[in-house]
Amino acid sequence: MIILGVDPGTATTGYGVIKSEKGEVHPVEYGCILTKSSKDLEHRLVTIFDELTTVIKKFKPEMIAVEELFFASNTKTAISVGHARGVILLACSKAKVPVYEYTPLQIKQAVCGYGRADKQQIQKMVKALLNLEEIPKPDDAADGLAIAICHANSYRDFEKK
Amino acid sequence: MIILGVDPGTATTGYGVIKSEKGEVHPVEYGCILTKSSKDLEHRLVTIFDELTTVIKKFKPEMIAVEELFFASNTKTAISVGHARGVILLACSKAKVPVYEYTPLQIKQAVCGYGRADKQQIQKMVKALLNLEEIPKPDDAADGLAIAICHANSYRDFEKK
Repeated sequence: MIILGVDPGTATTGYGVIKSEKGEVHPVEYGCILTKSSKDLEHRLVTIFDELTTVIKKFKPEMIAVEELFFASNTKTAISVGHARGVILLACSKAKVPVYEYTPLQIKQAVCGYGRADKQQIQKMVKALLNLEEIPKPDDAADGLAIAICHANSYRDFEKK
Repeated sequence: MIILGVDPGTATTGYGVIKSEKGEVHPVEYGCILTKSSKDLEHRLVTIFDELTTVIKKFKPEMIAVEELFFASNTKTAISVGHARGVILLACSKAKVPVYEYTPLQIKQAVCGYGRADKQQIQKMVKALLNLEEIPKPDDAADGLAIAICHANSYRDFEKK
């Protein structure tokens, strides 16, 4: 099964595509959607929506996992991430792919086994679980992969194939 | 000039369409886009995007004014409004209509003359300015009209026609 993981952000949206098969996960693709802060917000949101739609059409994931945000350092950040998440969820729904949401705690627990893992530990585990030669860069792409792995692990109990 | 004002919310997005002409504002239409809390978030966002796109296509506004949010009572509210604002800004941009953003303070000042006006005062002023027989209901639709009036007043200095 192909799973797409998405780490939402207005400036950088990371994504990772993996194949989950017979209890193992394999890397397919990962990258970032970048938008310039010099552009108007609405045009940045169009870029995120259009580029994510292209990724979905190219890799045809059967499921998409998106990081859920419950708190943020301040309201401005929360609204900003909310903007990006809004158009990301819209892109998934318009493409008719079911969406699953995971909190950072759930992602850390699924990938590293405990909820207090730091960024470096997550990146090392993503590299190890996917048999990558190097830690995937940039960080947001690694986070996208981590979210996809989290969904693969969480979904495994229900997986039939 | 036709102006659309939008008050974003995941459950209720209010909108108001006005015609601004020779220093006067006239009502064209107002209403709300409602989504059910029983539905998944991504489907609610599709409803907001699709219905707002229909409103834009129907009334062909030359400009759209959207309420800007700088703070909220809590992070959860901020993210939720962010989701709705994201797909609203996307709908405006996809329809190639320029977007203008106003804070609640700017809207109150433009409609009532002072920034501490309460909801009732705004509704009374919207009714008076648009020569309506009754206060527009529900509140969110009145807010949509207020945002459109705010843009008409703010834009008047630059208006040529």
